[in-house]
Amino acid sequence: ARQGVPEIVYGPGKTREQIVGIAAALLDRSAGPVLVTRVAPQDAPAVLAQVPEGAYHADGRLLAWRPAPPTGFHVAVATAGTSDGPVAAEAEAVARVLGMTVTSVPDIGVAGLHRLLAEAERLRAADAVIVVAGMEGALASAVGGLVAAPVIAVPTSTGYGAALEGVTALLAMLTSCAAGITVVNIDSGFSAAMAAHRLAQVARKTP
Amino acid sequence: ARQGVPEIVYGPGKTREQIVGIAAALLDRSAGPVLVTRVAPQDAPAVLAQVPEGAYHADGRLLAWRPAPPTGFHVAVATAGTSDGPVAAEAEAVARVLGMTVTSVPDIGVAGLHRLLAEAERLRAADAVIVVAGMEGALASAVGGLVAAPVIAVPTSTGYGAALEGVTALLAMLTSCAAGITVVNIDSGFSAAMAAHRLAQVARKTP
Amino acid sequence: ARQGVPEIVYGPGKTREQIVGIAAALLDRSAGPVLVTRVAPQDAPAVLAQVPEGAYHADGRLLAWRPAPPTGFHVAVATAGTSDGPVAAEAEAVARVLGMTVTSVPDIGVAGLHRLLAEAERLRAADAVIVVAGMEGALASAVGGLVAAPVIAVPTSTGYGAALEGVTALLAMLTSCAAGITVVNIDSGFSAAMAAHRLAQVARKTP
Amino acid sequence: ARQGVPEIVYGPGKTREQIVGIAAALLDRSAGPVLVTRVAPQDAPAVLAQVPEGAYHADGRLLAWRPAPPTGFHVAVATAGTSDGPVAAEAEAVARVLGMTVTSVPDIGVAGLHRLLAEAERLRAADAVIVVAGMEGALASAVGGLVAAPVIAVPTSTGYGAALEGVTALLAMLTSCAAGITVVNIDSGFSAAMAAHRLAQVARKTP
Amino acid sequence: ARQGVPEIVYGPGKTREQIVGIAAALLDRSAGPVLVTRVAPQDAPAVLAQVPEGAYHADGRLLAWRPAPPTGFHVAVATAGTSDGPVAAEAEAVARVLGMTVTSVPDIGVAGLHRLLAEAERLRAADAVIVVAGMEGALASAVGGLVAAPVIAVPTSTGYGAALEGVTALLAMLTSCAAGITVVNIDSGFSAAMAAHRLAQVARKTP
Amino acid sequence: ARQGVPEIVYGPGKTREQIVGIAAALLDRSAGPVLVTRVAPQDAPAVLAQVPEGAYHADGRLLAWRPAPPTGFHVAVATAGTSDGPVAAEAEAVARVLGMTVTSVPDIGVAGLHRLLAEAERLRAADAVIVVAGMEGALASAVGGLVAAPVIAVPTSTGYGAALEGVTALLAMLTSCAAGITVVNIDSGFSAAMAAHRLAQVARKTP
Amino acid sequence: ARQGVPEIVYGPGKTREQIVGIAAALLDRSAGPVLVTRVAPQDAPAVLAQVPEGAYHADGRLLAWRPAPPTGFHVAVATAGTSDGPVAAEAEAVARVLGMTVTSVPDIGVAGLHRLLAEAERLRAADAVIVVAGMEGALASAVGGLVAAPVIAVPTSTGYGAALEGVTALLAMLTSCAAGITVVNIDSGFSAAMAAHRLAQVARKTP
Amino acid sequence: ARQGVPEIVYGPGKTREQIVGIAAALLDRSAGPVLVTRVAPQDAPAVLAQVPEGAYHADGRLLAWRPAPPTGFHVAVATAGTSDGPVAAEAEAVARVLGMTVTSVPDIGVAGLHRLLAEAERLRAADAVIVVAGMEGALASAVGGLVAAPVIAVPTSTGYGAALEGVTALLAMLTSCAAGITVVNIDSGFSAAMAAHRLAQVARKTP
Ligand SMILES: Nc1ncnc2c1ncn2[C@@H]1O[C@H](COP(=O)(O)O)[C@@H](O)[C@H]1O
Ligand SMILES: Nc1ncnc2c1ncn2[C@@H]1O[C@H](COP(=O)(O)O)[C@@H](O)[C@H]1O
Ligand SMILES: Nc1ncnc2c1ncn2[C@@H]1O[C@H](COP(=O)(O)O)[C@@H](O)[C@H]1O
Ligand SMILES: Nc1ncnc2c1ncn2[C@@H]1O[C@H](COP(=O)(O)O)[C@@H](O)[C@H]1O
Ligand SMILES: [Mg+2]
Ligand SMILES: [Mg+2]
Ligand SMILES: [Mg+2]
Ligand SMILES: [Mg+2]
Ligand SMILES: [Mg+2]
Ligand SMILES: [Mg+2]
Ligand SMILES: [Mg+2]
Ligand SMILES: [Mg+2]
Repeated sequence: ARQGVPEIVYGPGKTREQIVGIAAALLDRSAGPVLVTRVAPQDAPAVLAQVPEGAYHADGRLLAWRPAPPTGFHVAVATAGTSDGPVAAEAEAVARVLGMTVTSVPDIGVAGLHRLLAEAERLRAADAVIVVAGMEGALASAVGGLVAAPVIAVPTSTGYGAALEGVTALLAMLTSCAAGITVVNIDSGFSAAMAAHRLAQVARKTP
Repeated sequence: ARQGVPEIVYGPGKTREQIVGIAAALLDRSAGPVLVTRVAPQDAPAVLAQVPEGAYHADGRLLAWRPAPPTGFHVAVATAGTSDGPVAAEAEAVARVLGMTVTSVPDIGVAGLHRLLAEAERLRAADAVIVVAGMEGALASAVGGLVAAPVIAVPTSTGYGAALEGVTALLAMLTSCAAGITVVNIDSGFSAAMAAHRLAQVARKTP
Repeated sequence: ARQGVPEIVYGPGKTREQIVGIAAALLDRSAGPVLVTRVAPQDAPAVLAQVPEGAYHADGRLLAWRPAPPTGFHVAVATAGTSDGPVAAEAEAVARVLGMTVTSVPDIGVAGLHRLLAEAERLRAADAVIVVAGMEGALASAVGGLVAAPVIAVPTSTGYGAALEGVTALLAMLTSCAAGITVVNIDSGFSAAMAAHRLAQVARKTP
Repeated sequence: ARQGVPEIVYGPGKTREQIVGIAAALLDRSAGPVLVTRVAPQDAPAVLAQVPEGAYHADGRLLAWRPAPPTGFHVAVATAGTSDGPVAAEAEAVARVLGMTVTSVPDIGVAGLHRLLAEAERLRAADAVIVVAGMEGALASAVGGLVAAPVIAVPTSTGYGAALEGVTALLAMLTSCAAGITVVNIDSGFSAAMAAHRLAQVARKTP
Repeated sequence: ARQGVPEIVYGPGKTREQIVGIAAALLDRSAGPVLVTRVAPQDAPAVLAQVPEGAYHADGRLLAWRPAPPTGFHVAVATAGTSDGPVAAEAEAVARVLGMTVTSVPDIGVAGLHRLLAEAERLRAADAVIVVAGMEGALASAVGGLVAAPVIAVPTSTGYGAALEGVTALLAMLTSCAAGITVVNIDSGFSAAMAAHRLAQVARKTP
Repeated sequence: ARQGVPEIVYGPGKTREQIVGIAAALLDRSAGPVLVTRVAPQDAPAVLAQVPEGAYHADGRLLAWRPAPPTGFHVAVATAGTSDGPVAAEAEAVARVLGMTVTSVPDIGVAGLHRLLAEAERLRAADAVIVVAGMEGALASAVGGLVAAPVIAVPTSTGYGAALEGVTALLAMLTSCAAGITVVNIDSGFSAAMAAHRLAQVARKTP
Repeated sequence: ARQGVPEIVYGPGKTREQIVGIAAALLDRSAGPVLVTRVAPQDAPAVLAQVPEGAYHADGRLLAWRPAPPTGFHVAVATAGTSDGPVAAEAEAVARVLGMTVTSVPDIGVAGLHRLLAEAERLRAADAVIVVAGMEGALASAVGGLVAAPVIAVPTSTGYGAALEGVTALLAMLTSCAAGITVVNIDSGFSAAMAAHRLAQVARKTP
Repeated sequence: ARQGVPEIVYGPGKTREQIVGIAAALLDRSAGPVLVTRVAPQDAPAVLAQVPEGAYHADGRLLAWRPAPPTGFHVAVATAGTSDGPVAAEAEAVARVLGMTVTSVPDIGVAGLHRLLAEAERLRAADAVIVVAGMEGALASAVGGLVAAPVIAVPTSTGYGAALEGVTALLAMLTSCAAGITVVNIDSGFSAAMAAHRLAQVARKTP
């Protein structure tokens, strides 16, 4: 694998045996972290039993081996509401395994601006902010106006009807009135963490 | 016409002569306000010359006769950015002609939360708030969390690309995390004012 | 919570234990009504057993504590057909818990205009009308022409094929030829009731 | 050409010379009516000068030669609003040239039910009803409930925003709660008249 | 009910008890046919046991009481492929109960033109043709070119991927190059039969 | 450039000077045909004056230098109607410049099956068939059933309303009931000719 | 059946008995290969027991009788990632039964260009390349630039969110910057193999 | 303005006078760079004449005052084809005015992999890469696999038909198989530069 890029396996659609095989092979031929995303809790023990020294991060549904040492890069993960929790958990788990320090800032949707403003300092303290929000996705714009750091927005498929399974939040985040917000795929906490990992590379490189 | 409902003509696609004819007829057969929306400035004088005692409200591109007396109903019209101005102007002009008192609260998009919060009192003072916003339409959610009064959201077709000519703002407003927000058609300042007019009816009726 | 705004919890995706915890906390830290929407009948008793003095409104799938006293605000809830019933029931249950008087006007779709006209007086007697309709959603336009009061249209996901799970009704209601109709999200009886609640605020405020 | 089917040319994109050539050829090789649709007023005289015995129907933008003799088939053409007029005019012109008797029933949108009901008898007197409506297209459902005869619905691209250039009316008409309504393409007054022409065939055939 | 219009109940979402209740009431208050569509085979016997003198048409999933006497109106029902069978069966069952004579012309998709042409005479013998086709829906255009009678096209949701659950066939049928084709909702064999029923009305009326 | 692949320049958005510069450079650094597509007639002479030995193919709006010698590969280009002509002309011009022999088979839409069948032999005589059709795009399916050779379908943006600027024809061609049809982008006669050029490569290679 | 075209049955929605009946009939009335696609492993043995001399190709979920003799036509089947495997397997199984020689080139997505380039020679050795890819479908463009032979792109429904169940890959392949790529329906390995079969016809024909 | 955030004005829809007024005010009340985007060449001189010490960057259509001093942050801007040039030029102009060092890497679309690989080192030398591509947008995935640094993808509206004015490239970039790519709005070179500016903030902050 390319220098500095962890090995990542997408779990869904793979049997326990396939995951065991792929994880073992990757641990063998590379030197950094190996991750399997979206693993159901009932599948994790069987895999861990056969590929030792790994850990299952249940909230984020992540299997991981050889976590990276702490890099000092600090990411805040904000959510608009409780339903956005699982996507945020995936982002947090991946970020931690890749050596980032993570601050959770849950449930600060824009319908309650005072709660959001109360968290402004915690958000500003981070090197980057991941914003996880479904429905109208307005939190990304509000956070983008509060912090000068990179903002990675993750639309979620929470909501119903006109939420269009996350498409509404996705479009809204892409047209945010806060300049310089970037967006990843719907429900992809994983992608947001990987984007933050790329940021951590450049943060180390440019003194 | 039904009691309490003004007569409204949609200007686009009609010649000056057609507008003159329809306006004269409506003034004749009804007793309340008569309005023609979306009239270009160059067409107004010719119509007014032939149908006396009307006025042209240039910002809102509205021709009107027999404006309603003040009702005491107070509506605030907030916009997210300067490009939302013309739609807000249509809402304001129609609202005024229908007897409402209007407060303009321009340019309070959520990327600048302190500016928005500075206007919270002016918004809370109104009987209803019309929120006009394009792009991601997040302002409706933020205002919905700040005021207990009815909020009528108007998505606008400002923005480009993923703004999809107002569809993104429309969908976002419909899935607002602030409960009880209502939405009208894209760019329809007229519809928002008419919805406020319906509110004014019930406000008078229920002591 | 903000003055005059009830506390609302969205049930789906939450365990009974989570609902118990959140409802208890909200009852503790606020003074008004507490509602949990979209609760399955099999889950209600377990929650009510642990959080006393609540009630389950089965038709509307609503759990509620501390209902508001009657406000005198009167809302009519009209449906186009029988399939729209569950969404109307949610609107009605929430409206009643928030202190509104509710009149049900079921099954008055525009394909049977005489049935609809027979109900015109009951619709005109209300302070606001919630119109619940799927498929082509035409009922909102017809009601909008019959009453001068606010009309809140709720598109439903009934129908198949070109009904596009409610999107067709949503778009149709937004482009209604009856001026001043407002619209909420697909299947959201809850949002319509909350919009009516906002109306009730202003109705009380403006003598 | 197939027995009973007139020859139709689609005008847009063709030069006057091409139209002259095609019309002349069709008059030569067939025996029934020859029509050219969507011809601009400025183009008609030049074509008629070179292909004699034709007529230009300005409202419907139709050039026609050898109109069919009256068949006794009677079609009513209803519109929701004034903007639907040009599409209705195309339907009416084509229907007349094909030998039908046409009754115009303009401006009976569902927001004014009493106006619509006042026309019920005229609608019921027809062998078929063509309903032309844009925006939410609700008129098709209401007419479908009033008459037992075939209803051919033509969505129009009038309206803006959520009207989606006629797609909303199209979808609404396809999901009409009035059973047995049929639908043709957006703005295609021509298609509606041709569908009525097919009806006239069967009406003659089955005593 | 309006003269000449049968009573129709949409089965899905209703319990056996509800169907029994509604069917009994309709038989009581009207004089013509009573139909319940989309009834599962396992539900039919229980309903028939309680509401006597009905019949279940298994292929078309239709429950019916008081079928109309034969009207002499003749409809052909063509399908493109075997997967379109169930939708055609619904159309045929409803048409028969409403007194029409039905000819089935299955599996004549345009990829096999000789098979289609071999059926041209049977199609031309009908007073109207219902064309049922999914995927690209091309059969409607081909049939429209072969017969002068009314063609009612029913798009089906067969196919996958770009078939978009019937939307592709729907759009294709609406833009058919054969003039005067009409279209009903996706998978709605019922609507096609009802449209044919309307045709049968006019066929009787115009000598 | 890769062996066997001509150099192609997309004309729109480039000035005459830019086209001159790019064409001259490509003629210099490569040995095969050089083409510039979608060049307006008024721009061609100026370019040809400066880059000698080229030719302008007006129907296909194509500028070309160093046409390939005849390869013996034979392609038929069929259209459904006259409006599809310009897209077919682009395909034909590009195909000829690349050394193919081209047979035009115009105006054989499926609404006139006998005309289509009359051309079956000409279609079967070709090594590959390019089918150009807008609206419902049904011609691709019919041709796919008539010939065993490769069929390359080009949807066109002709038509209006539900034709959705070619998207309907595109979707229809992708879901064709004739197995093994392939599809290129809307209006891209160029892409179809290039796909045929790839076919010609393999036809030469496999004896 | 037409000369050179195998008989194909689409398995889904058919009972084992229906498949037995159709397969037996096709074997009887035709002389070439008979295939049934998308047959579940649990259904295959029962069919094979009753229709002898067939084989089940489990990876491709294909039942086949009378496979064609080898034709010498060589197709490479490339996939972007492991999730695209089942669609590729269908393409490969159908291609082999129709007499093609197949080379599998799995897992060469463009995020790992060196792996892709390492396979360039194997891809260039084929008479045609089938590219199977989901998500952004970029592999088709990269392969199109590497080989001069025909490229048949199959979008797959792998991925989530903005992948829109394969629509994104489909659109991306249709707008590929590599000229002359052709595209078939989402997930249709079958269609790609049939398109290759058409290529094999012409490859034999043109010396 | 918030520390570190430049003042940006969106030019379209504003008169020269409005731009003069806003620019002057911003220069007055803030201390950093002031930018006006998407200014036509013919409007620039009049504005610069009235608001001194600014500059017009013609390629990027950018007016700017008080450019930031060089920060040492290095961004590469890659395009897939020549049509993507104007969007890249906007990104580059904004980036330079905000103090970044910019490397242009034009015309490296994935249909020519060797050209792309030849630029790999220049891309890897940057602190961040902005990838500008229309049509299928595949370049973002390829670059994402080549560099470990942050990748900001800008879909462009180049292309036609299935390119859907940039929506296809947008969706493709969001579902990139290269992990951690981020995306901004269609044609928004400006947003990409602002996202890079946020990166530059964190790069300075984390040693
Ligand atoms: N700006 C506007 N936007 C939407 N609808 C309007 C507007 N102005 C007038 N209308 C509506 O248009 C209808 C009148 O249209 P018309 O008969 O063409 O004048 C009435 O139903 C009005 O409520
Ligand atoms: N206004 C119209 N809308 C839709 N199709 C039309 C129209 N006028 C003519 N056509 C159809 O266009 C075809 C003729 O097209 P063309 O060969 O271009 O003249 C025939 O199939 C006509 O039925
Ligand atoms: N008419 C056309 N439609 C689509 N792509 C084209 C067309 N003409 C040329 N191209 C492609 O455009 C690219 C060249 O674009 P450019 O570098 O802007 O000249 C090449 O990949 C060509 O294959
Ligand atoms: N996997 C498949 N995907 C798409 N079409 C198929 C598939 N398998 C068979 N077909 C087509 O389905 C049709 C046969 O359908 P049926 O009559 O239902 O067996 C033929 O046109 C086949 O070309
Ligand atoms: Mg919350
Ligand atoms: Mg502003
Ligand atoms: Mg009913
Ligand atoms: Mg009117
Ligand atoms: Mg078949
Ligand atoms: Mg023709
Ligand atoms: Mg892989
Ligand atoms: Mg290039």
